Amino acid sequence: MEFLKRKGLVYKPVKDVDLGPYSTEFYLQANVKAPRMTGLLIKIFTFLLEFPILGTLLLFILKGNNLIHRLITNAEFEESPLFVPLHDFEDIKEKEVKCLDSSLSPPEKVQLALDCLPKTSGETLDDGTDSPFCRWTIMDYAKAYCSGDITPIMVAERFIDAIDESTKPPLQMGFFIHYSPDDIIRQATESTLRYQRGEPISVLDGVPVAIKDEIDCLPYPTTGGTTWLHKHRPCQDDACCVKRLRLCGAILVGKTNMHELGSGTSGINPHYGPARNPYDTNKIAGGSSSGSASLVSAGLCPVALGVDGGGSVRMPAALCGVVGLKPTFERIPHDGVLPLNWTVGMVGILAGTVEDALIAYAAISGEIPYNHTSSVLTKINLPRLSMTKSISGIKLAKYGKWFDDCSDDVRICCTKTLHKLRDHYNWKIIDVTIPEIEAMRLAHYTTIGSECSTALDSFKKKNFAELGWDVRVAQSIYGSFSGLEYLKAQRMRNRQLQFHKKIFMEADVIVSPTTGVTAYPIQDDAVKTGELDYVNGAALVRYSISGNFLGLPAVTVPVGLDSMGLPIGLQFIGRPWSEATLIHLAFAMQTTCMSEYRKPEVYHDLLGSKNSSNSMSFEAN
Amino acid sequence: MEFLKRKGLVYKPVKDVDLGPYSTEFYLQANVKAPRMTGLLIKIFTFLLEFPILGTLLLFILKGNNLIHRLITNAEFEESPLFVPLHDFEDIKEKEVKCLDSSLSPPEKVQLALDCLPKTSGETLDDGTDSPFCRWTIMDYAKAYCSGDITPIMVAERFIDAIDESTKPPLQMGFFIHYSPDDIIRQATESTLRYQRGEPISVLDGVPVAIKDEIDCLPYPTTGGTTWLHKHRPCQDDACCVKRLRLCGAILVGKTNMHELGSGTSGINPHYGPARNPYDTNKIAGGSSSGSASLVSAGLCPVALGVDGGGSVRMPAALCGVVGLKPTFERIPHDGVLPLNWTVGMVGILAGTVEDALIAYAAISGEIPYNHTSSVLTKINLPRLSMTKSISGIKLAKYGKWFDDCSDDVRICCTKTLHKLRDHYNWKIIDVTIPEIEAMRLAHYTTIGSECSTALDSFKKKNFAELGWDVRVAQSIYGSFSGLEYLKAQRMRNRQLQFHKKIFMEADVIVSPTTGVTAYPIQDDAVKTGELDYVNGAALVRYSISGNFLGLPAVTVPVGLDSMGLPIGLQFIGRPWSEATLIHLAFAMQTTCMSEYRKPEVYHDLLGSKNSSNSMSFEAN
Repeated sequence: MEFLKRKGLVYKPVKDVDLGPYSTEFYLQANVKAPRMTGLLIKIFTFLLEFPILGTLLLFILKGNNLIHRLITNAEFEESPLFVPLHDFEDIKEKEVKCLDSSLSPPEKVQLALDCLPKTSGETLDDGTDSPFCRWTIMDYAKAYCSGDITPIMVAERFIDAIDESTKPPLQMGFFIHYSPDDIIRQATESTLRYQRGEPISVLDGVPVAIKDEIDCLPYPTTGGTTWLHKHRPCQDDACCVKRLRLCGAILVGKTNMHELGSGTSGINPHYGPARNPYDTNKIAGGSSSGSASLVSAGLCPVALGVDGGGSVRMPAALCGVVGLKPTFERIPHDGVLPLNWTVGMVGILAGTVEDALIAYAAISGEIPYNHTSSVLTKINLPRLSMTKSISGIKLAKYGKWFDDCSDDVRICCTKTLHKLRDHYNWKIIDVTIPEIEAMRLAHYTTIGSECSTALDSFKKKNFAELGWDVRVAQSIYGSFSGLEYLKAQRMRNRQLQFHKKIFMEADVIVSPTTGVTAYPIQDDAVKTGELDYVNGAALVRYSISGNFLGLPAVTVPVGLDSMGLPIGLQFIGRPWSEATLIHLAFAMQTTCMSEYRKPEVYHDLLGSKNSSNSMSFEAN
Repeated sequence: MEFLKRKGLVYKPVKDVDLGPYSTEFYLQANVKAPRMTGLLIKIFTFLLEFPILGTLLLFILKGNNLIHRLITNAEFEESPLFVPLHDFEDIKEKEVKCLDSSLSPPEKVQLALDCLPKTSGETLDDGTDSPFCRWTIMDYAKAYCSGDITPIMVAERFIDAIDESTKPPLQMGFFIHYSPDDIIRQATESTLRYQRGEPISVLDGVPVAIKDEIDCLPYPTTGGTTWLHKHRPCQDDACCVKRLRLCGAILVGKTNMHELGSGTSGINPHYGPARNPYDTNKIAGGSSSGSASLVSAGLCPVALGVDGGGSVRMPAALCGVVGLKPTFERIPHDGVLPLNWTVGMVGILAGTVEDALIAYAAISGEIPYNHTSSVLTKINLPRLSMTKSISGIKLAKYGKWFDDCSDDVRICCTKTLHKLRDHYNWKIIDVTIPEIEAMRLAHYTTIGSECSTALDSFKKKNFAELGWDVRVAQSIYGSFSGLEYLKAQRMRNRQLQFHKKIFMEADVIVSPTTGVTAYPIQDDAVKTGELDYVNGAALVRYSISGNFLGLPAVTVPVGLDSMGLPIGLQFIGRPWSEATLIHLAFAMQTTCMSEYRKPEVYHDLLGSKNSSNSMSFEAN
């Protein structure tokens, strides 16, 4: 009960904290004091929280019980606040990369990415046999379209049929918040004509790509998972990242389901239905980029966009068995993304394969030249994926107590994979201690909460009652933080950045599981009211925080299944601007683990059959 | 009473706000609802504010009455937060400047500054006649020392005698919090020996310089105006700016009095006595760099350092009739300054003349080369002060309603001076509207308050009762801001930066009085308890806020006296990195207004008589 005392922790000076394997730093397990709630219980709790004075008192007790007072509010820091995890661009020397100028056009960037793809494509989908399961890639689409056997219109029609089928009972996959078959057919028709003229814009031409409903994409409203936000903030243009995909010819197939306002990790949206996990439709897809992950997992898009403010791309990617890439803060322009926060959220990529994540990354990365404030224009490194020797000798930092703080299945699978990778590629595992991880989680929570509450303040008054119950509780907590708590959280941000910088002086990446648990059941009572489950929530976000709070790039790759057949992800977190290294490592991981991949329960094969006929080169326009 | 409503203001998009002279933007006068309090009244009020629940309620009413709810808390912004007023370094093209590399040593920089001084020194001190009053400058000290007629030891002894005399009754000037005659004599002896060897380090060698007690300077503790802060945070080294002055050979004469914790503008410190105004010892010196201003005004140092978090250098400079220069945010390193806030405070210079401000600016400016995070090392422009043609045609933005929102004396004097300057130098006055100035003041108050409260949090619990009563009230208000209020204040910061950028597209500088009122009386009942006077406080800071909140450089120069013989300052606010232009304009202003200068009531003549004998060149070491 020591931790429940009001007295604040006095943090040691950073220089006195031992980050080595034998450090005496205590690993504090998240000990969330908040019971799971749904149905009537959550309604009563919400009512109490929103009650004046009583609510304030309850929130005070809740924050105290969950160590916010001890680790943040009353804690003593030496560090000054770090408000925004901006990293000066550094042209880090990465091996076997192709360096792009960030002012190139998106199709030019995509064309250059093709040179980085491995020469031999991996094994491909071969239904009904024991051979490894592989998803269709962007290159498969492009080859099929070029061969003329399949057209974008055919794929669009199959896509619309598949959505029709999956969203109706019994499956009831809540993929989308808005999607328009007409708009899809229109785009597919234009793409088909381009192929017929022999003038596809890029390999992305005609490829279905889905967009999280937190990112502006015409002709759709941007709801943020609510029933009302788009009424106050009409979507007037594509977001910058969407614009870039459209410039490459991608078919934007609609706005995917998400945890309402990004204020949760399950993806159970009471207004649009839960997104559901393609590996088991009774399980959550994870969130908040839930629909994007489940669409990619179900084979309906090789790539989708999400937004990751606290693991919201990586968690659903891991739970749905796909690749999730969250680049360095400001690597992808944030213009046209709902401003639910200002310092932790970033656009991320969900993809069926690492190759496709690379192509999408090339398409949407790089600051807007006329808009950038920094004096240094960034360069973008793309990894040459066939060059595996470049990743030999990579040093991976592993914090054992943290790495192992997950379910048995996750721990065993991730450890086994890590050892296999180490042995195969001659990697070095460096045992380290990353201190104060739970305090960082609470500081991040304070930050994203305060920012979300402020961002939505003018809307909430009018529309609070229209929110799901779990999100109403979340917003009550979000609104309870003081200026002092916000500022102390930023002091923790500075502190953690210093720890991480030290670790990156010794190691290339930090390795961890992506989530502490795999997809858990969607209980019937949760579907209508939403669900409060901060215990599972904390286990899901356990490994995500530094990516957001410190703006570090991170990638998750599926590495196996748990005993229930649900996917498990392994994560690499890199130093700023080291996306190329991360994608290199992710590709190695994918190659190594491919034999573990299984086809999801819900899966649609939009290309019909392997089509590896004539390849065609795509000249940049 | 419209403004008392809880409903928040919906701010117009920046692009729709007219900044022209005929704008319909309403100029909201500060309407501070807080009675002046001292003595028993302030004690009772403090007690009530610190009482649980009742205190919270009182603070809520206080904030509501003072429009914080309407203009900040419940207001609706489109802008995202701007947390730190950092400006990318821009090598702006200024005319007639000498450009220094910021990696030069401080003595090298000072040597280069000498080339920028006007060839003919201005009129000098000539006691008892009607000729204009001029202070001894750094060059006067250097020439006197070089001639050998006067030594640093002689000056040090005169200095110590003068302090002895002034700090005893009847004057009771509260110049210092700590000062050590032994340490002064030690430094003066070393300096004298250097001159005897013919090896002075720079023109600053042997020149007395005082340091605000918010800046670390050995061998003194750094109290921040409290009786206890130095016990928790021992001073272990000189601050960077102090180190630079010491490297130039300056004699650091002690730690000057300040408003406790910088949490007020009067400079009435209940622990160390009020600093007192040399022009009238019954009037305030202004604050919070109170002692630094009054020492310079009283002729005891040509230069002193202060810290300006909300006008704290410029206000006392104006009230005490000296020059105050607050450079661009991060132009002078902040290392070794008490962390009372993180985003608004900056080291500033108080000087008897513009020439001396220029020399001190050259000595202490420029980032620490090994410490700088930006990819661009700044360059420092110094203005060639004799080149007056370079300032012909300067465009000054003036917002009439704001400019005129001050006492009659201030308004008449500042207007007259401005017209004289315009006519003499062929300047252009551009009428503009700067919107939402009062909202910016409240946003700045929310910011500095939240940051100060957070910075002092760990000390306050132990030492709250040892603070002066007015500072206890201030700290209660400071601690009352929510995370939402802090973040909305940062949204206002972004908004105001956009307004100011637009104004600087049309004009070179913004011109305004420095303070809305001149020095007001120190009432007897205030001396022991401290004084709460938010009405005068708001009038004092009226013109200071953009310098701190937006990190813009600003300078104040004495331009005349009010009907009571108290000094009046006129202020120029510049675009980022335009210090050279500001100093140029300040010099023009000084030249024009010199006939208005009068000797203060308390004045010490450390050089004895004009000494314009042989000049000596100072080679950089």
